[in-house]
Amino acid sequence: MTQKTLKLGAIIQGVGGNMSAWRHPEAIADASINFDYYRQQALKAESGKFDFLFIADGLYINEKSIPHFLNRFEPITLLSALAAITSRIGLVGTLSTSYSEPFTVARQFSSIDHISGGRAGWNVVTSPLEGSARNYSKPEHPSHPERYKIADEYLQVTKGLWDSWEEDAFVRDKESGVFFDPDKLHTLHYQGEHFSVQGPLNIGRSRQGQPVIFQAGSSEDGKNLAAKEADAVFTRHDSLEKTVGFYRDLKGRLAQYGRAADELLILPGISVILGQTDEEAERKYWQVAKLVTIENAIDYLGRYFEHHDFSQYALDEPFPELGELGENSFRSTTDSIKRNARQHQLTLREVALQAATPRPTFIGTPEHVADQLQQWFEAGAADGFIVGGGTPQGLAEFIDQVVPILQARGLYRNEYEADTLRGNLGLNIPANRYTPHTSPVTR
Amino acid sequence: MTQKTLKLGAIIQGVGGNMSAWRHPEAIADASINFDYYRQQALKAESGKFDFLFIADGLYINEKSIPHFLNRFEPITLLSALAAITSRIGLVGTLSTSYSEPFTVARQFSSIDHISGGRAGWNVVTSPLEGSARNYSKPEHPSHPERYKIADEYLQVTKGLWDSWEEDAFVRDKESGVFFDPDKLHTLHYQGEHFSVQGPLNIGRSRQGQPVIFQAGSSEDGKNLAAKEADAVFTRHDSLEKTVGFYRDLKGRLAQYGRAADELLILPGISVILGQTDEEAERKYWQVAKLVTIENAIDYLGRYFEHHDFSQYALDEPFPELGELGENSFRSTTDSIKRNARQHQLTLREVALQAATPRPTFIGTPEHVADQLQQWFEAGAADGFIVGGGTPQGLAEFIDQVVPILQARGLYRNEYEADTLRGNLGLNIPANRYTPHTSPVTR
Repeated sequence: MTQKTLKLGAIIQGVGGNMSAWRHPEAIADASINFDYYRQQALKAESGKFDFLFIADGLYINEKSIPHFLNRFEPITLLSALAAITSRIGLVGTLSTSYSEPFTVARQFSSIDHISGGRAGWNVVTSPLEGSARNYSKPEHPSHPERYKIADEYLQVTKGLWDSWEEDAFVRDKESGVFFDPDKLHTLHYQGEHFSVQGPLNIGRSRQGQPVIFQAGSSEDGKNLAAKEADAVFTRHDSLEKTVGFYRDLKGRLAQYGRAADELLILPGISVILGQTDEEAERKYWQVAKLVTIENAIDYLGRYFEHHDFSQYALDEPFPELGELGENSFRSTTDSIKRNARQHQLTLREVALQAATPRPTFIGTPEHVADQLQQWFEAGAADGFIVGGGTPQGLAEFIDQVVPILQARGLYRNEYEADTLRGNLGLNIPANRYTPHTSPVTR
Repeated sequence: MTQKTLKLGAIIQGVGGNMSAWRHPEAIADASINFDYYRQQALKAESGKFDFLFIADGLYINEKSIPHFLNRFEPITLLSALAAITSRIGLVGTLSTSYSEPFTVARQFSSIDHISGGRAGWNVVTSPLEGSARNYSKPEHPSHPERYKIADEYLQVTKGLWDSWEEDAFVRDKESGVFFDPDKLHTLHYQGEHFSVQGPLNIGRSRQGQPVIFQAGSSEDGKNLAAKEADAVFTRHDSLEKTVGFYRDLKGRLAQYGRAADELLILPGISVILGQTDEEAERKYWQVAKLVTIENAIDYLGRYFEHHDFSQYALDEPFPELGELGENSFRSTTDSIKRNARQHQLTLREVALQAATPRPTFIGTPEHVADQLQQWFEAGAADGFIVGGGTPQGLAEFIDQVVPILQARGLYRNEYEADTLRGNLGLNIPANRYTPHTSPVTR
């Protein structure tokens, strides 16, 4: 019996780290719009046998937004470009179901899947930022529950479109002139409350059947959507205990949708800071944390609360009472900020700095961080991790210093097992709904 | 004074040639979904110093569609991937303004422009196929004039969003912590009949200022949109005389929009078949033409006329009277087919085969084709050409055999003049509307 191994993704958001990490002496200040930077990070992660790269996104900025959100690549284009220069690593990107068209998005992810030979993943989000509506000719941002209803329908449409063509639909027989088998072409005719999409999709099935579906919401609606439709979940909690709770809760929801616990991978997003000693790691944390001014931190906090202006409050008074503010945007985050402030009687200054410069849970020597990862993995908190560097060199250091330890312990692969993302993640290739005589194929 | 040189683009649509060219013995039958094929074609065109690649698109298929439309890459993803593996050639793709969101599309083309270092171009179309509405949850396909009104507004929005950030808006001063100059950030606040888009765009200005705008409609509405907004036009006419007429007509419309004649390039799309002798070229044409059955040709014709079923008519009777059918889809094409059928009293069979297997205007020896291109260029029919191979090896043969002749005659570049698409096309970099003290910059 082989030991169960963990999965690793790399989240690359410009220079990484906190909102002011671009000021770090080692930082490439324009990293968020520097393709050579992304190329190097992607190749580095592939050399570390990472399962995938993860590219986040957002659809609204203003002058107070985080610097690396102001000027950054659009994920579909970035992932496609990276597909052409990598060969084994998965390519996962965020795209919102609230402000896009399922026919186009199904095509684009399928096209990346074809270009990459079966390495595409889509992180389905519903857009937390209310301002997005103003960039998309919409009178208002849909409510949180409404956004999740739209997302559910949207996934029915895209998954349906991805089954338009069966595996062996394209015959391409030059002699007879038969290009495809019409019995293996299926027109969806979807009619729902929010979408009506006929199909078929104008692109065939890819090597991994369908792109891998990620989901990143940790609200009740988010967890249910993940349990019903996703292959993997990106989540973020600040303690082992909370992460174990989330893991059990979400895995427990799968059965009601007729799914087994191993059909959904739970991958906490973690930030890592490494040092040759614990003290060096601590120094590196403070070097990055001190780059953030209190004014930056106040702006940063506001973004989670529908762009609320926190500069109107006294910094060293108790965190203000906000009522329902924030419930329609990053709900699980804003709930947790409010709860934490109440519980520990924090001031606005404390809350803002904690939000903008969180001390990573995974900080210390490579051995120490490897121990922590193993502990979380074995405690049932995670099937793997989505790693972000807490300092400009963080991801590279993780790959050079932590991955070899995980490999030596048999916790991580030495070589890619497969050449598709599903294959490496150990996920089944979903059967085409119109090919009932086959069972799901294991990579 | 340097001689005026012509511009060349390469249209790559899978294997190229007619709808049955995939059956050709030399054809790569899955070319439309084969990334290695596109990679090789792109590198070949770049070795031939082509200005750009051109990727067409469509948003609706059914079982009677042209084989290479059934299963093909989506243009945004394909162009992005090709951006990562090329260095000088422009990357132009079709995207419809009738079924997309300007905020997303402005981002995506700008992102390709950044990834490629200033080589992106967008071929603005309004979607001729009525069925597109059924893939996009729309009750009906907008009428031809309505589509052009939408396209006009759409371009106001995207061009406005592309000016969100002035050239030197991003300061990135690590010492002071100033990431950008707020005076150089501009929020669009566009309010129109079809779109309301606040901005700013979350990506900065690229090396060529804005992606190059192509336009491909030859109707009155299409010509006016091109004269007002486009940098280049893709058109297609079956004789030198008609092309000269189109060229004069369109160039004559520029002044009313305050533009000079050289601000818009007119680039006819041409199909080329080459042979070492005229007879060999002729044989190669018939080898490809005979791959098309009359049933294929009837289906092909129907696509232009809103998927009309022409199999209901006798093949060898006069071409049927169709009334207004086709006026809301590929209007300039359907008008021309009807006029031609009337004028020459053609049967349905003749019309269908002529549509599906048109004899290329540019056919013969490399010297002969070079003579023709020079004639068209010097007669004022074209500023250059968008070349499609009429046979599977057509583009490669054109690059190896015709380009050197054009170069020897001083009609075509030996080396790229610039590293942006605007630079190579000789187009100005548009000034940012908020930077009034600068005049348009010549590459």
